[in-house]
Amino acid sequence: MNRKPHIAIDAMGGDEGVRVMMAGVAEARRRHDGLRFTLFGDEARIKAALDNHPNLRAASEIVHTDGVVDASEKPAAAIRRAKSTSMGLAIEAVKKGDAGAAVSAGNTGALMAMAKLALRTMAGIDRPALAALLPTLGDNDVVMLDLGANTECDARNLVQFAVMGAAYARAAMELERPRVRLLNIGTEDLKGTDEIRDAAAILRASPQLAMQFDGFTEGDKLARGEADVIVSDGFSGNIALKTAEGTARFVTDLLRKAFTSSIRSKIGFLISKPAMHLLKHHLDPNQHNGAVFLGLNGVVVKSHGSANAAGVANAVHVAARLLEADITQRITSDLARIDALGKMELAS
Amino acid sequence: MNRKPHIAIDAMGGDEGVRVMMAGVAEARRRHDGLRFTLFGDEARIKAALDNHPNLRAASEIVHTDGVVDASEKPAAAIRRAKSTSMGLAIEAVKKGDAGAAVSAGNTGALMAMAKLALRTMAGIDRPALAALLPTLGDNDVVMLDLGANTECDARNLVQFAVMGAAYARAAMELERPRVRLLNIGTEDLKGTDEIRDAAAILRASPQLAMQFDGFTEGDKLARGEADVIVSDGFSGNIALKTAEGTARFVTDLLRKAFTSSIRSKIGFLISKPAMHLLKHHLDPNQHNGAVFLGLNGVVVKSHGSANAAGVANAVHVAARLLEADITQRITSDLARIDALGKMELAS
Repeated sequence: MNRKPHIAIDAMGGDEGVRVMMAGVAEARRRHDGLRFTLFGDEARIKAALDNHPNLRAASEIVHTDGVVDASEKPAAAIRRAKSTSMGLAIEAVKKGDAGAAVSAGNTGALMAMAKLALRTMAGIDRPALAALLPTLGDNDVVMLDLGANTECDARNLVQFAVMGAAYARAAMELERPRVRLLNIGTEDLKGTDEIRDAAAILRASPQLAMQFDGFTEGDKLARGEADVIVSDGFSGNIALKTAEGTARFVTDLLRKAFTSSIRSKIGFLISKPAMHLLKHHLDPNQHNGAVFLGLNGVVVKSHGSANAAGVANAVHVAARLLEADITQRITSDLARIDALGKMELAS
Repeated sequence: MNRKPHIAIDAMGGDEGVRVMMAGVAEARRRHDGLRFTLFGDEARIKAALDNHPNLRAASEIVHTDGVVDASEKPAAAIRRAKSTSMGLAIEAVKKGDAGAAVSAGNTGALMAMAKLALRTMAGIDRPALAALLPTLGDNDVVMLDLGANTECDARNLVQFAVMGAAYARAAMELERPRVRLLNIGTEDLKGTDEIRDAAAILRASPQLAMQFDGFTEGDKLARGEADVIVSDGFSGNIALKTAEGTARFVTDLLRKAFTSSIRSKIGFLISKPAMHLLKHHLDPNQHNGAVFLGLNGVVVKSHGSANAAGVANAVHVAARLLEADITQRITSDLARIDALGKMELAS
């Protein structure tokens, strides 16, 4: 039921409004021929936005609803009125099998709670995780998870995240055996918590998995391109992701200050603008927009609230790729390989 | 006993050799008039290095030892032969009261273990923490702790780290009431682990402390200058520190690539070199070298293994400042303010 090339869009989420969402979806549609969409939200505004995008209009149907989940709304409150909101209806479409994936730029907590409740966690997965692709100095991006869905995790959770992350890397980057590492505070076997060491022991003892487990990595090596998947609990993953974002912004702010500190450096800046543009392009969060909730019966992608049209297009592209690669089935068959050898016989 | 303006130096630690260590100590000596040193290590090599630094030679005595702690040596092994090593003897000098502080660029694990064993944890502190100053976009640096001494921490540990970090910020940046925040994955009260929420509750209920507790902060705000002290467990703190270091390097590497991508951008780079120099200066880890073990009976500072002379000078400067500010006494009197109100009555 998840293989339909059909994506449900929450047209109302996001800080940038319906027009930006529609422009982004239209852009993604150009990359994925044959993809169809159901657009949930204010019909009049959606229709107005579609005037500029006949290609998307031809591939979409609109389902009207007045309800919108507020950015500051508590997940519990949002869940109670899910089926009257654009976010809740988009997820419901995945549950009913009308769509294979849902994309929303709305309230992350509400989206996660609604998705878990409606789609339920996959058989064999204890907890879903939030994953995203981050840029590296290597040829490929790196899949990082969990980015904040689970504050505390046991070894079993971490192993399941590794399996899900590897399936994502195989789907998104067409790698046969993605190189997987656990985020830790050192690379020696003794480092870290019991949970991390136990997870490493299980992964080391599971060569039948479609991944190459390479042990630990540290915070300063996230962007080195030495791993295709980096696994952590949601607390550390969130700290790492946000620290990376904040530091990149810090350095570019310093750069801006430096380049406007004198006439000479201003001239240098103007001359080297193409170089700066290249840098900005590489660090633009829109280029890596689209975090996926992995481990649910259906694909749910979170687009950043402040993403521009190119960012929204990337989030939809992530959903389309995972749908085309049948990510849920890939994870299921990988989990079966661990269970068959009884490697997951840990207290859950 | 810790107030003597006398610092014990492990001359042999560090990857850059005795000459770089001595050049750094000599530079620090120029900033702190009246400071005296005992230099532990290979007498012949130390003497040779001092030939270039008559100012330091006049303010130092040398204690010869052949033993050096190896970079890869296990802490337990290093401890057994501590008193025959330059690192162990430097710490021993603090224990005996011959010096108020010790500085080493050697093996961090061994230094931490030796320091804990020889100096013991201060009364009122359950676990020492590793703290460092990091650059921000604001006027001041920010004190971050713990950076890796304690993988897991309870609320009581986090509160003690906040007290120690605030004392450090007052000493290093001459702030009366440093603004303190706990590192978390969101700023709402409900976010994070029980330990973090409990620590926040204790700090909120302790206005008598010489700090302004401002709740939580996130990884993307470390360098914003909104906090003077950021407190975390050693796992998250280590992930954040290393991710920040790695991302800064990632961005500057991208920058280098961008600036050499065409003749035009190369010319721009040459013209704006002073700007780039400014940026590099701000991000140079040597500018922020010197991590402190807070919470011991005596000051112990770890200089980065690869620090240059300017970096070593900063590490010695950190030690001198903390010694002059009598950091240990400050922490003791702050802890008394919490205990007096019975705020720390948590299971330890």
